[in-house]
Amino acid sequence: MSALENSRVTGVLLDVSGVLKDGETAIPGSVEAIRKLREAGLTIRFLTNETQMTRRKLAASLIDLGFCLQERDIIPPCPALVTLLKRENMRPHLLVHPDILPEFDGIDKSNPNCVVVSDAADNFTYENLNEAFRVLINMEKPRLFSLGRGKYYSDNGGLTLDVGAFTAALEYAADIKAEVIGKPQPEFFMSVLRDMRVEPQEAVMIGDDIVGDVGGAQNCGLTGVLVRTGKYRSSDEKHPTVHPDAIVDDLAQGVDLILKSRK
Amino acid sequence: MSALENSRVTGVLLDVSGVLKDGETAIPGSVEAIRKLREAGLTIRFLTNETQMTRRKLAASLIDLGFCLQERDIIPPCPALVTLLKRENMRPHLLVHPDILPEFDGIDKSNPNCVVVSDAADNFTYENLNEAFRVLINMEKPRLFSLGRGKYYSDNGGLTLDVGAFTAALEYAADIKAEVIGKPQPEFFMSVLRDMRVEPQEAVMIGDDIVGDVGGAQNCGLTGVLVRTGKYRSSDEKHPTVHPDAIVDDLAQGVDLILKSRK
Repeated sequence: MSALENSRVTGVLLDVSGVLKDGETAIPGSVEAIRKLREAGLTIRFLTNETQMTRRKLAASLIDLGFCLQERDIIPPCPALVTLLKRENMRPHLLVHPDILPEFDGIDKSNPNCVVVSDAADNFTYENLNEAFRVLINMEKPRLFSLGRGKYYSDNGGLTLDVGAFTAALEYAADIKAEVIGKPQPEFFMSVLRDMRVEPQEAVMIGDDIVGDVGGAQNCGLTGVLVRTGKYRSSDEKHPTVHPDAIVDDLAQGVDLILKSRK
Repeated sequence: MSALENSRVTGVLLDVSGVLKDGETAIPGSVEAIRKLREAGLTIRFLTNETQMTRRKLAASLIDLGFCLQERDIIPPCPALVTLLKRENMRPHLLVHPDILPEFDGIDKSNPNCVVVSDAADNFTYENLNEAFRVLINMEKPRLFSLGRGKYYSDNGGLTLDVGAFTAALEYAADIKAEVIGKPQPEFFMSVLRDMRVEPQEAVMIGDDIVGDVGGAQNCGLTGVLVRTGKYRSSDEKHPTVHPDAIVDDLAQGVDLILKSRK
């Protein structure tokens, strides 16, 4: 943890799935770890690429698990995308999880001029993928927005394909490059830091995604800490391009190190 | 057709879907075109990335449509893959169309050490994709074999995602590169030419896939002709890297030009 020893940490960004919880279960020690961060007066945000439920529902489920947080502390990519769609007069064809459809209320979805893909889970049917592809290939200038581009995630202990795999499929077939909203997009990290009023060098990101969490944070000047929970695999410690500032067993250990570095 | 005018064509390679037929319908003039090629004494092979049915069934369906051909004239990628699997003691997990399962009879599929993906069509379910991904990610040295890597194809007039899109999804998620068997793999073209006893500069490939058919053939020194049937789109004529030797309205026109060039 040498990278943390001489730092002045004032803000902590936390991934949700695989750090706070795995599936519907809190990871041991994580509820207590969040409480400690709050007691130490650190500014916290939960930076998630979660797109299987609305922010409201995610907040409620985390509170149910015992976490001390408010809905506004959670930063999923969907609100940023909705702002962008409105600003650029985009009418999306949605390939998303049914539970986040309410986030798109009030957005014109007729005669689509772009496709939005998120972690649609069971909605990633052959039929729905073909439909999204046909919408794209028939556009004069196809635009594909992807909410994050994770490779996979841990769901109750099993690895599951994430949105990035299906985005890659559509990119390949339609010969286009998706515009990513969410981690590891730099603007996603920077807008949260602005909101927190924390400088990158004073912030730590803790996550289980070596590329999306750790690499994304480091690219913006934050300290990137990898946890050995969630989708962590031992091969992550030999990643060819991303080298975490620290690797910890779990959130509890990561938080203890942050708090120790402040003393 | 300047590229054909001074050539001495002795062999013709033909894509099947989108050239001979679209869905279950023969493309007008194509049955007659094949007959003309045969009458002119040209050596013909049908070089297809078709993996939705066995070679036997594909031959039967083409004969039903009126085409003059024999099963051994059809070269799909599956037999070459089966040879490779046997040679390298590979035990595949199959993500393929149920109708080609008989091609894998006699191959040990227990305790898989590779994944094979072909155009599985409706079998490309979220569940099956996740299962193939989990097999890959749990291998020490994941190997993924892809039967072709087409982007899309025309099926009764509608564009449908091809195996390449799903291969791209698995490649992205598992961070690996698939080994492609079929067009545009050079060995696939060259082994057919050897069997035909035709030199590349004496052979013409006619297809509706600008990359897989035309580009793949040109890379091996064949003349590549694009047809404006099947999945052809006008944007193919402005492809950034592949420039067909000729573009024709359909197989009938392509065959007439080949025959004229021989006079």
